[in-house]
Amino acid sequence: MFFASDNWAGVHEKIANATAKQAGSFQPSYGNSKVDNKVNARFNQLFERDVNVYFVATGTAANSLALASVNKTGGISFSHREAHIMEDECGAPEFFTNGARLRAVDGPLGKIDPTNLAKALEQFPQGSLNAGQLMAITITQATEVGALYTLAEIKEISKIAKQYGLPLHMDGARFANAIAALGCTPAQMTWESGVDILSFGGTKNGCWCAEALIYMDQTYTSDVPYLQKRSAQLFSKTRFIASQFDAYLEDNLWLELAGHANKMAELLAHKIDSSTTMRMAWPCQANEVFAIMKKDHADRAKTAGAQFYDWPAPYGMDNLVKDDEYLVRLVTSFATTPAQIEQFAALK
Amino acid sequence: MFFASDNWAGVHEKIANATAKQAGSFQPSYGNSKVDNKVNARFNQLFERDVNVYFVATGTAANSLALASVNKTGGISFSHREAHIMEDECGAPEFFTNGARLRAVDGPLGKIDPTNLAKALEQFPQGSLNAGQLMAITITQATEVGALYTLAEIKEISKIAKQYGLPLHMDGARFANAIAALGCTPAQMTWESGVDILSFGGTKNGCWCAEALIYMDQTYTSDVPYLQKRSAQLFSKTRFIASQFDAYLEDNLWLELAGHANKMAELLAHKIDSSTTMRMAWPCQANEVFAIMKKDHADRAKTAGAQFYDWPAPYGMDNLVKDDEYLVRLVTSFATTPAQIEQFAALK
Amino acid sequence: MFFASDNWAGVHEKIANATAKQAGSFQPSYGNSKVDNKVNARFNQLFERDVNVYFVATGTAANSLALASVNKTGGISFSHREAHIMEDECGAPEFFTNGARLRAVDGPLGKIDPTNLAKALEQFPQGSLNAGQLMAITITQATEVGALYTLAEIKEISKIAKQYGLPLHMDGARFANAIAALGCTPAQMTWESGVDILSFGGTKNGCWCAEALIYMDQTYTSDVPYLQKRSAQLFSKTRFIASQFDAYLEDNLWLELAGHANKMAELLAHKIDSSTTMRMAWPCQANEVFAIMKKDHADRAKTAGAQFYDWPAPYGMDNLVKDDEYLVRLVTSFATTPAQIEQFAALK
Amino acid sequence: MFFASDNWAGVHEKIANATAKQAGSFQPSYGNSKVDNKVNARFNQLFERDVNVYFVATGTAANSLALASVNKTGGISFSHREAHIMEDECGAPEFFTNGARLRAVDGPLGKIDPTNLAKALEQFPQGSLNAGQLMAITITQATEVGALYTLAEIKEISKIAKQYGLPLHMDGARFANAIAALGCTPAQMTWESGVDILSFGGTKNGCWCAEALIYMDQTYTSDVPYLQKRSAQLFSKTRFIASQFDAYLEDNLWLELAGHANKMAELLAHKIDSSTTMRMAWPCQANEVFAIMKKDHADRAKTAGAQFYDWPAPYGMDNLVKDDEYLVRLVTSFATTPAQIEQFAALK
Repeated sequence: MFFASDNWAGVHEKIANATAKQAGSFQPSYGNSKVDNKVNARFNQLFERDVNVYFVATGTAANSLALASVNKTGGISFSHREAHIMEDECGAPEFFTNGARLRAVDGPLGKIDPTNLAKALEQFPQGSLNAGQLMAITITQATEVGALYTLAEIKEISKIAKQYGLPLHMDGARFANAIAALGCTPAQMTWESGVDILSFGGTKNGCWCAEALIYMDQTYTSDVPYLQKRSAQLFSKTRFIASQFDAYLEDNLWLELAGHANKMAELLAHKIDSSTTMRMAWPCQANEVFAIMKKDHADRAKTAGAQFYDWPAPYGMDNLVKDDEYLVRLVTSFATTPAQIEQFAALK
Repeated sequence: MFFASDNWAGVHEKIANATAKQAGSFQPSYGNSKVDNKVNARFNQLFERDVNVYFVATGTAANSLALASVNKTGGISFSHREAHIMEDECGAPEFFTNGARLRAVDGPLGKIDPTNLAKALEQFPQGSLNAGQLMAITITQATEVGALYTLAEIKEISKIAKQYGLPLHMDGARFANAIAALGCTPAQMTWESGVDILSFGGTKNGCWCAEALIYMDQTYTSDVPYLQKRSAQLFSKTRFIASQFDAYLEDNLWLELAGHANKMAELLAHKIDSSTTMRMAWPCQANEVFAIMKKDHADRAKTAGAQFYDWPAPYGMDNLVKDDEYLVRLVTSFATTPAQIEQFAALK
Repeated sequence: MFFASDNWAGVHEKIANATAKQAGSFQPSYGNSKVDNKVNARFNQLFERDVNVYFVATGTAANSLALASVNKTGGISFSHREAHIMEDECGAPEFFTNGARLRAVDGPLGKIDPTNLAKALEQFPQGSLNAGQLMAITITQATEVGALYTLAEIKEISKIAKQYGLPLHMDGARFANAIAALGCTPAQMTWESGVDILSFGGTKNGCWCAEALIYMDQTYTSDVPYLQKRSAQLFSKTRFIASQFDAYLEDNLWLELAGHANKMAELLAHKIDSSTTMRMAWPCQANEVFAIMKKDHADRAKTAGAQFYDWPAPYGMDNLVKDDEYLVRLVTSFATTPAQIEQFAALK
Repeated sequence: MFFASDNWAGVHEKIANATAKQAGSFQPSYGNSKVDNKVNARFNQLFERDVNVYFVATGTAANSLALASVNKTGGISFSHREAHIMEDECGAPEFFTNGARLRAVDGPLGKIDPTNLAKALEQFPQGSLNAGQLMAITITQATEVGALYTLAEIKEISKIAKQYGLPLHMDGARFANAIAALGCTPAQMTWESGVDILSFGGTKNGCWCAEALIYMDQTYTSDVPYLQKRSAQLFSKTRFIASQFDAYLEDNLWLELAGHANKMAELLAHKIDSSTTMRMAWPCQANEVFAIMKKDHADRAKTAGAQFYDWPAPYGMDNLVKDDEYLVRLVTSFATTPAQIEQFAALK
């Protein structure tokens, strides 16, 4: 009953095998091995255009380097108030940008409300030295609370970004889950919808450590290699990362794994809907289920070995949870089994 | 004939297997898995005391975080002029410390000359606001040009460090090769000789990506978790790194691998000594061989597929190389075979 | 009719004379002149305890250095959303702290609402690496919209700060106006109410360029001289700044000047209250008057030479201004004359 | 007998009067007053072209902002080893550039030796990510030890800078003394010789606090206003600074004052040459005299009230000073009188 996070899961065997195959032989380091080149081509194919791909150690690094590459003196970026880049990176975005600011925008279910964004930008006193410089907009897909932007919603955000000449970054720590759920192509969900920079996460979806920073074109890439090296994010044996992505992208394994995780979340949601001691806090859209549990039930479930976390109520949902209840987050992964869900659902 | 760098080698099969074993099952993330705990105990045993271990993505990260953890406003650290931390990290030490300075100290073969260090410290105008604050001393073992500090030499440096109340950091990207060559214990080469902080590298010696920042005591550790997270160096699936170290340290595999690399270097050095078209630039002490080759011979060797780099003459050796010669670096690794060396030696 | 800002005024003649007197003679630089020592004693006397005083170039510097001196890795400070330190320093607080974050707290009239502050702190996930570290609370007295914290209100904030072990900083760009208005002592408004660090501004109240960063005790001062020098805020001819403060504090000139500015604001408020084309947006408490003017009236006033700025509606006052109205800020200073106010009031 | 530094002198009365005249009246702040505009025109005239002028608080700020405006990720600038920007700013250049590095180049008398500079640049492994990026060259005129670059020497440096596409910055804390000594125009010593950015100092030559950062063209200025504001170097009452420069530049007062200082240095040098207990360490070229004094004589002179500092021997002059001697620095200023020099020379 491991629903604490998708990073509690291990690694899919095809990915483990692919890295194991790289153990022997000598290969050039720093991105020049055969599999590095192969994976670059895979990403171009995946996004249906020439993209620039940089492997980094963590999602935090991908997000923070994305901002660093579009950095401005006194820069101000806009993010959802509850986004990971805002709440969970211990100042990394500020560190990588030497102090650019993230400004919170509200909206339901972790999604930036375009009206709020437009208002924040309108009110920004442009041309004022004191106020600093507009720098970027960043969205999370799927969001921190498991919701999805539709393509139309992404386009609405990107339209505003374009209006102000701002790059649009997407934190895709759960990019695969979003693609699997929306049934669209990576191209459609990114550059065709106006996304310029993508943090493409593989770690939560069956890789060991496979995060890539992807630029849809070369507008912002000139300084990235230096920023990456300076922030100690340039691996020497890159073929180890590349081989993970190689297996991950082969035969759409990534979508298969994400689809499974999403399906397990759906199953879990169904169980919760049928429960008398739990109810869904909001509909499940990807691989994260947010439920409201009676406190005593939740406590017993934890004692029985179920792994999950409490969660603060998101924007606009202050009255969601009663005094004798918890809001909890349950995350499924490629490795979640129906049996685990049945076991959880059977807890009294 | 892969002598370009020890990071061109792959991964030892025991290490590859150990990570593969971690592919299944669910485990807590962020350093709390079973193998994480096991490896922490291994490090304590290895160093014969309770040490604090932080896994990071790269040697650059380990070195830079080491400095960040002892950071001072206007801080000045002392490093050998040709050290990796000085010459090859694209400003990472300055970035991680928000601008502390590295000051170069000279000495033969990549080793800080204690007399030069003492002189630099004596001349530092202490108590002067303008001059900034003394911060740290960092040495590399084995050095960038393959030489070794003796234990007595490390103690001489640490004595000076203690005199000024400065922490002593050791860049141990090739720590294993140094231990294997000196035949001493990790404890002897670190805290018993006055080293406070160690960058412990596994990547160059048969791991995928296994770098650890190790503190011999807790004097400087209080801020390290925050510094690590803020710099995007905190992996989620840490068991993947831990399992590499687990296999690496099991049954002294790490020393076996480093011993092999050193032995291959010795063999290579012997071949070079016997050659008429090459000569040793200085004696080989670990797993790096520096040779002087006739230019036309070197060019032919490269054409024939030998992989190695030219190298600038180190401090005090300006007249080492004649006009028709190159100084070249040849690095051996756990994966180097005698056959590769024979093949190289046979080139005309 | 100069109501654009108190920094449009010149310098009081006593202050101008005091600096002129320093033109001759030789004196030690960097804080060691006679008048430097004299002014240090004056500040001790003013605050009724030994304080540590650092002269800096601007209020931005004082505020930013204050945060830098209590800096933490991944640090988060709390400020009113509309405070100058939040909205008007082009990223200076982030720059001086190498990326610590300012988090907005709401409250009426530029004052942090203690309930909101307590809630923000309660919800901060302490002990979480991801969330960073609590660092400081900063308030502005008088606030950006001319309101005053009562001593009781400051104590309420400082009580919360103490509860979390956080230093309390006061941005006192208009400290003199606040003291003059409240009729309390500097000690009462600072350390006796729990303020640890004060940005003490003289520039807006009749000095040329006289801003001081004042620490009520030595808890946070050990690094300040280095931070000050490193940020290029250490003047060489400090006696020029010191002499301004010397005259400023002599015979309570500072309170006399602030008292005059406040009185002029009161007069202006009275005129506005009596006007048919203007009304007070909220009561005037120090030297800033916020009025609502008919747009056409405001435009005519500007054409007639009146200097003042439009202002965005503060927190909780969204419906304050009608479509045919502006909210405007009118600032008085030591140099404002009743005639200017009469002239403004007479505009049709 | 005040020879400790030119910043021990006060302020010339014409400058004091000019600021006093600005005490009354209201004027727009932040660079928009009448005298601000007037001074901008003065600087254009002085440099015989349209220049961009930014007032800052200190020479440290001017130098550090100059580097910040040409900043690069992993940037490396070249400075003389003993330059003020290298040795005396407590890490300010690194702070303002978020960690760019200053690399030392040697040469006699504080002047970068062009051969050494060319060698340093040739050896820089361009195109190497690890090595970082070439960023700028900075020279000091007059140098830290009172020597002068000839125009030909500046051109030799700038030719190398141009070859590598690097901007050339001049630290002109004693620009006036250099111009007065060389008898050339500001244009000749800056842009006509290839200097792109100038730190123009007035403080040491009779101003209170008047330092300007001057760009010869607009190649590097787009970000400067933001960098200036973010680093808290934007004064509100700029007319106070502008009025100092206004008087300073009026009727060539600045050259008159610098000429006097230089002449006093010459007189002092003459006295030292005639002395039996002192000798000149090297010829005086501007307003700094470096002398070798018998230790007991120096001690007696200090006891008798003479103010001066000991100085470390510069590059290549290790054997300059005998065991019973000190190398000392004696600085003259606009306020130095022949009587002070006679008094010093008469000390036994």
